[in-house]
This record gives sequence, C-alpha cells and structure tokens, in this order.
Amino acid sequence: MTTSTQRVIEGVAGPGSIGRVAIGDILRRTAQRHPDRAAIVEGDRCTTYAMLDDAANRYANFLLAQGLTTGDKVGCICANSTDFMPVIFGIHKAGLVWVPANAMLAAEDIDYILHHAGVGHVVVDDVLAAQPAMAAMLAALGVPMTVISVSGSGIAAGALPGTGFADAIASQPATEPVVEIDERELALIMYTSGTTSRPKGVMHCHLSVVMAAMSNAIEWRIGREDGVTAVLPMFHCAQHSVMLTGVLAGAKMLLMRGFDPAALIEGMAAEKINIMVGLPLMYRAVLDHPSRKQRDINLRMCVYAMAPMPEPLMTRLVNELCPDFRLSSGQTEMYPSTVMSRPDRALARFGNYWGESNVVNDTAIMDDDGNILPRGTIGEIVHRGPNVMLGYYKQPEATTAARLHGWHHTGDLGLIDHHGELLFLDRKKDMIKSGGENVPSIKIEEVLLGHPDVQNAVVVGLPHARWGEAVTAFLVPKPDTDPTEDSILEHCRKHLGGFEMPKLVIFLEEMPMTVTGKIRKTELRTKFADHFETATT
Amino acid sequence: MTTSTQRVIEGVAGPGSIGRVAIGDILRRTAQRHPDRAAIVEGDRCTTYAMLDDAANRYANFLLAQGLTTGDKVGCICANSTDFMPVIFGIHKAGLVWVPANAMLAAEDIDYILHHAGVGHVVVDDVLAAQPAMAAMLAALGVPMTVISVSGSGIAAGALPGTGFADAIASQPATEPVVEIDERELALIMYTSGTTSRPKGVMHCHLSVVMAAMSNAIEWRIGREDGVTAVLPMFHCAQHSVMLTGVLAGAKMLLMRGFDPAALIEGMAAEKINIMVGLPLMYRAVLDHPSRKQRDINLRMCVYAMAPMPEPLMTRLVNELCPDFRLSSGQTEMYPSTVMSRPDRALARFGNYWGESNVVNDTAIMDDDGNILPRGTIGEIVHRGPNVMLGYYKQPEATTAARLHGWHHTGDLGLIDHHGELLFLDRKKDMIKSGGENVPSIKIEEVLLGHPDVQNAVVVGLPHARWGEAVTAFLVPKPDTDPTEDSILEHCRKHLGGFEMPKLVIFLEEMPMTVTGKIRKTELRTKFADHFETATT
Repeated sequence: MTTSTQRVIEGVAGPGSIGRVAIGDILRRTAQRHPDRAAIVEGDRCTTYAMLDDAANRYANFLLAQGLTTGDKVGCICANSTDFMPVIFGIHKAGLVWVPANAMLAAEDIDYILHHAGVGHVVVDDVLAAQPAMAAMLAALGVPMTVISVSGSGIAAGALPGTGFADAIASQPATEPVVEIDERELALIMYTSGTTSRPKGVMHCHLSVVMAAMSNAIEWRIGREDGVTAVLPMFHCAQHSVMLTGVLAGAKMLLMRGFDPAALIEGMAAEKINIMVGLPLMYRAVLDHPSRKQRDINLRMCVYAMAPMPEPLMTRLVNELCPDFRLSSGQTEMYPSTVMSRPDRALARFGNYWGESNVVNDTAIMDDDGNILPRGTIGEIVHRGPNVMLGYYKQPEATTAARLHGWHHTGDLGLIDHHGELLFLDRKKDMIKSGGENVPSIKIEEVLLGHPDVQNAVVVGLPHARWGEAVTAFLVPKPDTDPTEDSILEHCRKHLGGFEMPKLVIFLEEMPMTVTGKIRKTELRTKFADHFETATT
Repeated sequence: MTTSTQRVIEGVAGPGSIGRVAIGDILRRTAQRHPDRAAIVEGDRCTTYAMLDDAANRYANFLLAQGLTTGDKVGCICANSTDFMPVIFGIHKAGLVWVPANAMLAAEDIDYILHHAGVGHVVVDDVLAAQPAMAAMLAALGVPMTVISVSGSGIAAGALPGTGFADAIASQPATEPVVEIDERELALIMYTSGTTSRPKGVMHCHLSVVMAAMSNAIEWRIGREDGVTAVLPMFHCAQHSVMLTGVLAGAKMLLMRGFDPAALIEGMAAEKINIMVGLPLMYRAVLDHPSRKQRDINLRMCVYAMAPMPEPLMTRLVNELCPDFRLSSGQTEMYPSTVMSRPDRALARFGNYWGESNVVNDTAIMDDDGNILPRGTIGEIVHRGPNVMLGYYKQPEATTAARLHGWHHTGDLGLIDHHGELLFLDRKKDMIKSGGENVPSIKIEEVLLGHPDVQNAVVVGLPHARWGEAVTAFLVPKPDTDPTEDSILEHCRKHLGGFEMPKLVIFLEEMPMTVTGKIRKTELRTKFADHFETATT
C-alpha cells in the first residue's frame, strides 16, 4: 500500500514515435486504409489517397534534403490547388513548421509575416509568384523557394525563380522520413489579420490540430462515404481544419481555387458531394443560381462560418437546399471549430446564436475578475480544450493575457442562455458603455442596416461627458440615395431605447477596411475621438 | 531567416490545465452540453449526465479528502452497477490511478493485483464484498474501503466494513476538484489474465484512453441520439472504452450487471437502444430467444468481440437482427479497439478476418528482425498509435520487449491480404513449426471441432526429432460419444495436408482452464513435452 505521490512510474518507456499524435499520421493512416479512393478532385484532376501520401512523403524528404531541421519554418503563399495539399502534409511529416500567409494580403504584409516567422523556405504558387510586387518581395527576401504550378495558370514550369514542385519531388524517395515529432511542439504559425495592430502569429502544436480534426469528425459523423467541399482558402484555419477532417475520415474533397457558383454546383453534382462548407453569401449564390435546379445536388449537411445567416435566407436554404445547416464558430487561437449551432435549431434561432461547445471544448462566460458567470449573464466568452494555441509567436505578454485565469480569452462578449446555447453579442472592445448600460455595437448596426437607404453601417462609442460613451453611427448610403440624419434617427427610435440611440450620425463615402474585408473600427474611433469633447448633452 | 533548430519557442506558456486531455473532462463536457439527458439506465433507475457528473465530482472530492494524491492507486472490485460509473470518473477527476480487478477472479488473485499495484483505497461492491473469501482478503489487506450498494443485493447499507458510496459523497462539494493532470501520466492499470504467468499490469495514460474513445466515436458515427448497451463488464478494456465512447457522444447506456437475454431484449426495446456490444454467444441467445420477435428492437449497429462469429450464425444475425455487424479487436495493451471488420464485408469474410485499423492506429506485419513485411506474408501483428500502453507496471524488461523496433508487439500472428484486410492466424506462441512449415493451431482446432463427436479441441506443437514440432491434438468428446483416434484422423485427412495432420490424439475429460475461460495450453505443452522424445516417425 502506498499513499504517497509517485511521479516516477516503473516500466514506462516513454511514448516516442510509437504513441505520438502527429498531423502527418492522419494522412498516412487513411492512405493505408483506402489507398485507391479519391482524396482530391480539382477540375479534371483526381488525386487518390495513395498519390497524396506519396507526394507528401517525397516533399518532406525534399525539404529535409535542403538542410531544414525540426522546428524550422516554411512559409506558404498559396491559394487552393491540388499540390498545396502534399506541401502542407510534407511540411508536417518533416517535423517543420507550416507558416501559411493569407494569399490575399499585399506583398508587404506577407513580407512582414515571413520575416516575423523567420522562414527558411517559401512555397508559392505560380499565379501569386508572378505578381510583380510579390516577385519583388520574394527576390528581396532571398529564401529558397518551391513553386507550385496551378492548373490553368498558363505559366510555364521553370519560368519563375525556385524549384518547381514536380521537380522537387521527382527524385525523392516515397517513404515517409523518420523524424521525431513531439505532439506538444510547434506545428504551425497562422497569422491573424489585425484590425488594430500588426498580425499576430498564432502557434499550434500537432495535438491541438489533430484534436480539432477529430472533434469535427465526431460532430459531423463523417466517413469515407462522404464528399466535402474545399472552396474556402486552406491557408485559413476553417478550411484547413475541414480539410484535415476530410482526410481523417477518408472523404473525397472537391477543391476549388476560387468561388464560382456554377462550377461549384457542377462539381457537387458530378462528384456526389454531400457536405458543403462555405460563407452565407456562397449559399445565397448557390441557391439563386439558375443551374442549381437543373443539376442533382444532394447535400446532407451544410456548415457556414464567419457570419450569421439572415432568417429569410436560412429558411429558404433549409427548405430548398439542405435540411441540416450549422453555424460553426471559433478562432485561429482555438483551433476551429469551437462551438456549433444545433441543426435542429436552425429555424428557431437566428443571428448570432452560436450553439454549444464541440466535444473537446469547455465554453464559459467570465467577468473581468476571472469569475465564471451564471447563465443569462453577459461577459467574455472563454474556452478550454486541447485545441487551444500554444501562444502568440514572440509575444509572451499577449500569450499570458490570452490565457488569464486558466481559460482562453476570445475577446468576444456573449452569454449562455437558459437552453445552454451560446449567444455572441459583440467584440469586447466594440461593446459600448452608454449611460451605464452595455450596448452591443452589432445590435445598433443591425437596426441601421434595416433602413432602406443604408448600404453599410458601423457603430462605435466615442468619449462623452454625460453618456460615458456616446453611440455614434457611421453610414454609407446606398447608391442614388440621400438619407437624412432625421430619417435615420426616426427609424432607430422604432427599435431602440434612449441609451441605445445614436447620438451622432456621420455619412461616409466608404468604410475604412482591411484587405481581408474587416472594417477598421479603430480608425474611426481614433479619428473622431475628440468629437464630443466639449459636448454635455 | 533561420534554418537552425529552435526548441525554445518564444511565447509558449505551456498547456497547463487549459489545454489538457483528461478522461474526466469527457464527462464534464457532455454534462454541460445536455445535463438532463439519460446517461445510464439500470432497471428502473435512470441517471442523467448532470447527476453522473455531480456524483463523480463528489466522489473525487471524497477521495482527495482521504489524503490520496496524484498518482495514488485506487483498486476496484466491482461488477457493473450504476454507482461504479461515478467511481471510475471520480478516480480520474481526482488525478488518481484506476486499478480495476476482474471481479470473476478468485480472492487470492485479486489480492495479488491489489498488492502489486499498491492500492491506497479499494472500492468494492456489496455483492462481492460479502463473499467470505473476498471479505477475509479485504480484512487482511487493511486498506480503507468504499462499498457500493448494488441494486437488489439485499445487503443493508452499513452491514459491511468501509464507507458506503452514498455516505462518501453526501457531504462533499459537487464542484470538480482543481487537480493538475498531465495527459501522459498514468491514469489506469488494468491487469491482463495470464495463461502462462502472473497477470501483468497494463498502464495507460489519459491521452491514450481518450484517443481510444474518440477513435471509436468516429468509427461508429455515434451521437446523443444513440443508445448503447453496457452488458460486458466495465472492469474490462472493451466495455470500459465503449462506455467512454458513449459518454463522449452523450449517448444513453443500458447497464446490466449480468447477461440475461430476456432482460436485455426488454431493456433494448423499452429504451430504444440501437447499438449493441457483446460476445457471439450473447447475440445467439438474443436471436433465439422467444421474446425477441414480440418486442420492437431496432439495432443499427452490433459490435462483437473476443471471438469470431460462425458463418451460419452471422448470416442469420445480419438477416434477422441487424444489417451492420462488426468484429472489433484489440488488446488491453493497445486500448481497444485497434482494428475493426468492415460491416459491408460481414457476409463475405468469416472467422478471424479482423478488418482494418481504426483511425488512430497503424497496423503492420513484422518479422523477428523488425522488418515490415509485404501484403500476404505471415508475421507478427504490430501496431502504433496514441492508444498504446505506457508499459507493464514494474516490468521494464517486458515493456521494452513489447515495443521493440518502435512498434507495439501483440504476440499475434497474422497477415494483411491483398484487400488490405488483417487476418489473424494464431497467437505467436501457439503457432506450430511442423516440417519447416507454419501450422496455426487454430486452423487444426477448427477442423477438429467439425468432427461430430468433438466437444472441445486444443492443438499444440510438441518437440519432435523429425517434424521439429509435432501437431498434437487434445480432445474432449461430446457427452455419450466415444470417438476413436482413427475416426478423428480420417476426418482430418479430408481437410489437412500431411504436415498439418495431428501426429498424436489425446482424449481428455476436461481442458485445463483459467478462471476467465482461457485454455491453459502451456500446461498441456509442459505435461506432454517429453512424449515424442524418442520418436523418429
């Protein structure tokens, strides 16, 4: 009998490679289970799991042959393409760190990311590498490169600096390299688009990413009989985790480089795709496209992300396209998805009802002192789970702040209602304190967007002697309209209480935006910070 | 740019509790998702997930209040009961090590296990604690005890030494204790029944067990809408991992203490159970029971384990009981299941076709020098995956041997056929080398069992000057029959080649068995080792 703490266990040999959790293992196992099934369909090109695993192994061997070693960073500037897949898995199989840049960013922003991460190799697709600004940036960077040939790019292999992907893998062995991989070591750094500052590098380990894929697979009941879209960009956490989920399950992926509703409808029908993952605007485009009713599409599940679905659209989608629609939410820091709306609630709950936690996550509402709040109370949405980031690269203070009190802080405000469903209210920094009350900027924006002449609306709180923060509306009118402040305020009075009412309406020609389409609220806040300085009413 | 190995990553705060993988977290998360759904139904007693989580937290707090700390061992001598569930989860939530004993073992064998593990507390159910030999053993052990009251045991609370479970949790807080849990630390020690030696203590960490449950959940496509049986004993790895899979998915479990086909049929019908997990003999009993056709049973999946299914029985089961039957195989050392037969092959492949690896496992065939063998070649079945054991408790040499060449060695011989399906042939130590050829003892036993007068058959190889090992058959005749050696050999000649033919047939009245029903082949091998010493033909 012993009641003392024994931390040293007799007989333990340590996990080693025999028991590791590693991203590359997902692909190898599926390729072993069904080598000849389709992994990726892109236009006329079909890649089986055996072919994908083979190419990933060869590319891993290529990278190691370049002298890269465990922990080295490999930057990727790639939109979706078939060859991007073995690149991603090859980097992981080699024990290297995947650093995907958002391919829509300007060359100077990608340059910042590549320098910040300290990449030792860059993979770029020919379409992007041929852009003059990108080419100049890459030349100045001076890091060895692999160039992917995108189907139909029209760019000849060898026309650009760097090693062509086909050449890189041609002479490499197809056996997986033997590399020690620690599941808690760095596997990827994904940079978030900052609306207020430079992008932050979110670090994840192998275990985190694998857990996200397994969690999705459990929630989705996905298997080899399924086919899933890859229309969103794989450099983003959403489609990356969806892709891994598909590979884990052995499903077929319909890969597209850009969104084209006609081509998507055609592909989904031809390849018998039954799971679609997209943005609300994509679903609207598919729903309203004339070819939809002419082609035989059988979707069993649709996942949407990034934005809520308007009630009329959701109702039509459920009735006309697919009975099972789910909003999947998360953030790069908590490898997605973290919460998901329940499909049986799709026609009962609209807007920002985010639903319930996935199987690997705890979700709670926390006040500023670290107390977990009871149901129905507004506070910050916090999470725990193995899919949490390791931290922000080279930003230990930001990392510490993000995991204060032992939970990951999302920066989102919300509440858990009496059904146990999470309701998102606003970004914490965008919540306005008006007359002592919390006013979600999103709520006011929704009301303003209901005005017939309003194209775009942003609401911020500006410092105000009486209100604390004064609700301030910035509006872009619809073309050929000329709404007055009075007409806007009259519309608002029908829907809002006094403390929620805009105290000022400012008309703009266009909103200040980031390249990824987020509105720079901070810019508006800073520019108009002094507006109410002398006001007292 | 850097190409050097950087093991120290800036910004990493370490996983800590925020990102851990822990067995107890599975229950907490499901209880958060749907507190009011049924977790366990046992006779008239229904326990919701909130009740189960509450009781587990209280029991964890009770154990910690006894002075037990991280890594201490808690022995369990329990057959299935509702209160066994919060005991298991309570031990894990407290960061302690669960040591379940096979409740069917003799008291002296359980005594060996409890001493070998060095338990600091014992949980025993009243039915078992009341057995005189068990009571005497426990009294001599002198370790503090918790006593579970089994429904209908007829034993009054407090009649036995130790703290009653209800008393233990009554005054404890229902909040989960804050305990640091390292996912790679010891979570359980499960003792395997040895046919050749003392039981070995198989150690698993939290990550291993959670991965097994997640893997099952993915393979089974199980969710909260499902109901699953808990008829096999939970002290065994098979039902334990099934139970965790059910809790992870939020499914309902129909818990039974012993197998009773009438009660199982009644329970499955009343509770709308759609997934059954059992032994072939249980399926036969359900199929042939008169009440089956009178009750409305709708099974969508049936998993069987421990033994192959005879072809005529499988055909009837698929046609009459459930279209989806799967053999799930594994071992305590590779937390089950590791391989699973494909349901669409149920009527194409019979006997010991084990199918393909689960999503978290690699399976291969290895020769004695550590080489992975090509398809169609016989060798030892080896696995890798995060569900591998930490090792054998206090047996570092056995641990090292079990993971030679970086793979877990099962001790099973088999091959992977050209369909990629694993075929089990024999235990490695039971394979007979006759005339330079491999003869699986199981193959000869199956032929012998085909003789109309044979009740039980065991085949071993005995040392022989000419054959190397001589195929030797031990037979128990059916009651009221008296088969001759000639009639047996004549039967064998129709099915076997010369090197496979038994060189000796020995009739026994009964087979030497372990308490868990395994035949002690080693005893027969040892007793008859010298039989052919002087033989040359």
